[in-house]
Amino acid sequence: MKNKKLVMIPGPTPVTRSIQDQMGRETVAFGDPDFINDFKEVIKDLKEIFKTKGEAFVVAGSGTLAMEMGIANVTKEGDNVLVVSNGFFGDRYVELCERRGLKVDVLSAEWGSVVTPEEIDNKLKEKVYKAITVTHVDTSTGVCAPIAEIGEVVKKYEDTIFIVDGVCATAAEPEYLDEMGIDVLITGSQKALGVPPGLAIVLAGEKALGRRKSLGTIRDYYVDFEKWIPVMNDPSKYFATPPVNMIWALKEALKIIKEEGVENRYQRHKKVARAMQAALEELGFKLLAKKEYRAVSLSNALYMEGIEDAEFRKILAEEGVVVAGGLGAYAGKMFRLGHMGNIDNHFLVSTISAIERTLYRLGKEDVLGRGLKVLLEELAK
Amino acid sequence: MKNKKLVMIPGPTPVTRSIQDQMGRETVAFGDPDFINDFKEVIKDLKEIFKTKGEAFVVAGSGTLAMEMGIANVTKEGDNVLVVSNGFFGDRYVELCERRGLKVDVLSAEWGSVVTPEEIDNKLKEKVYKAITVTHVDTSTGVCAPIAEIGEVVKKYEDTIFIVDGVCATAAEPEYLDEMGIDVLITGSQKALGVPPGLAIVLAGEKALGRRKSLGTIRDYYVDFEKWIPVMNDPSKYFATPPVNMIWALKEALKIIKEEGVENRYQRHKKVARAMQAALEELGFKLLAKKEYRAVSLSNALYMEGIEDAEFRKILAEEGVVVAGGLGAYAGKMFRLGHMGNIDNHFLVSTISAIERTLYRLGKEDVLGRGLKVLLEELAK
Repeated sequence: MKNKKLVMIPGPTPVTRSIQDQMGRETVAFGDPDFINDFKEVIKDLKEIFKTKGEAFVVAGSGTLAMEMGIANVTKEGDNVLVVSNGFFGDRYVELCERRGLKVDVLSAEWGSVVTPEEIDNKLKEKVYKAITVTHVDTSTGVCAPIAEIGEVVKKYEDTIFIVDGVCATAAEPEYLDEMGIDVLITGSQKALGVPPGLAIVLAGEKALGRRKSLGTIRDYYVDFEKWIPVMNDPSKYFATPPVNMIWALKEALKIIKEEGVENRYQRHKKVARAMQAALEELGFKLLAKKEYRAVSLSNALYMEGIEDAEFRKILAEEGVVVAGGLGAYAGKMFRLGHMGNIDNHFLVSTISAIERTLYRLGKEDVLGRGLKVLLEELAK
Repeated sequence: MKNKKLVMIPGPTPVTRSIQDQMGRETVAFGDPDFINDFKEVIKDLKEIFKTKGEAFVVAGSGTLAMEMGIANVTKEGDNVLVVSNGFFGDRYVELCERRGLKVDVLSAEWGSVVTPEEIDNKLKEKVYKAITVTHVDTSTGVCAPIAEIGEVVKKYEDTIFIVDGVCATAAEPEYLDEMGIDVLITGSQKALGVPPGLAIVLAGEKALGRRKSLGTIRDYYVDFEKWIPVMNDPSKYFATPPVNMIWALKEALKIIKEEGVENRYQRHKKVARAMQAALEELGFKLLAKKEYRAVSLSNALYMEGIEDAEFRKILAEEGVVVAGGLGAYAGKMFRLGHMGNIDNHFLVSTISAIERTLYRLGKEDVLGRGLKVLLEELAK
């Protein structure tokens, strides 16, 4: 029998049946009283889970649109902005900001490492930056930035808005806006939230909302906080047609998170990541991210001598697991394995065992069961 | 037994079970070979159905995002733009353009009427407009602009890009880009296409694509044609994560359109509209749109003496039909009834009969069956 293909890429992640069911519901009018209540609950839950007294925004879009929404509401042309880049998506923010006429300085880390809070502190001392952006987990490298520590640093600079790109981290790594000093959190639906792709999700604390107000009318329309705030506070109001089914799917995803407990969810991701990473290392892969900076949401595994990317991923897909290829300089040199969102032990065991079967088919005879043993031992701790 | 609520607002429209099923499918990787083929087919179908040699864009978003995408790719700050406004969504384009630093002139029609091609021709003679926007069907008024005739006019002005806002018209009213001289068609998924809300859909002909090229790097990122063109031509490429399930839903919607035949679909909408409008008039409603300008996708019906908006719509919902309220100066004075997309005669009969039952409950004793008789006679023609 053909193996079912498990979607173990760093997003979209596997979607539970209960979320699929929400996607597949008969669409209602966006003015439907039940839908209005559902939308209200989604906004309330987001603000509670990510702990902000500010606002939450859920709009049809993608993580990239959320990036634009994040920067558009807190900066104006000519402002200094500091982009901290630990990989591909950090670099994307550079281009996005430069197009907007922002004066961009960049702090980059070597791929696999991170820019430290100290480096950021030193840079912020140099001049007034109106905003700083940090990618929490860069899917290109599998590293996790020390957001809480960076938040402590940025808090000292009252003119600087701290934008965190949480696309590959939100709901896997702790992100508490008000206490961590995150002013804007941007994310998408299809990663650790476990919803299909199609939503841009943005949270903004009071400092960011104050900045937005001070800007007056901005050039952007669809991503303007001011257009959406009335709707997010009272979804019976209209700005643009809300993606009804996607919002239902998000509601179900948030229900799953609340049932698990968000702290438990973060702990689970940590345990799962350490177990998966230990299993991958046992099987002979080296991980791109240095141990102290490894993300919990994905692992980027460098191929050992003699394993060829296209062939590995083709056989692995036959064995029932889809992973993503490397980006940039690491294209062809590694695969990216997502292990976030609503996945249980069956997914983990299936994934490691499919990787073992793949390596075996590629001539590595001593692998069967070895990664699995380490995985189970780590999970049992 | 409680009546099922039929969603007869001007979008979202009723979603067929087969489209719901696509929404509810297990999400796959956007690099999945089958999904890549599905996405390719969607783009190909859009270009064929709306007849352009140019490009089609399908991105997570809404009609409002599509409006921004339309104008962002063909104008730069300081350009003259002519906005033709026949209602609320025309006015929205004014605000959107002014924010972008465009010099906006407006030609407005009284609500219920349209700006004529002659008026447009006279205006275009005055100076060089880099773009003109026309709302094909403005849902606030229920009027339909004479797009083909306006296209003939705009064709004479080689510097002017013709942007048609088709949100409430596309797949109900004929829109053939290259032959009608439409340079950019913008639309959403949740109207006559019959897909749930969540997609911005844009088509661009060669003149518009040439303009985009001449602009070099633009300020906008997510809506930039140049970022998406490689993806739309080869969906194995990545720019931002595509909304997988929504794209499947659109694929199914386009399949339904091809099976019906797009010309047949336009004829059906015309016949349905005339029948519904005759039935509404028979029941004593006056329509906001003048007869010669009436849209086929919706009808905006003014209440007769003694009928109160909130009460009417509440009882009508109990009787199983959800309609929308009036916008702007017509809030409280009329209801807006959508009759577009994938609806059959059962929907039409159910809707008119529910309106009759509602009027009857509100004291109009001579209505039962009268609208239905006219509806059936018109449909039988």
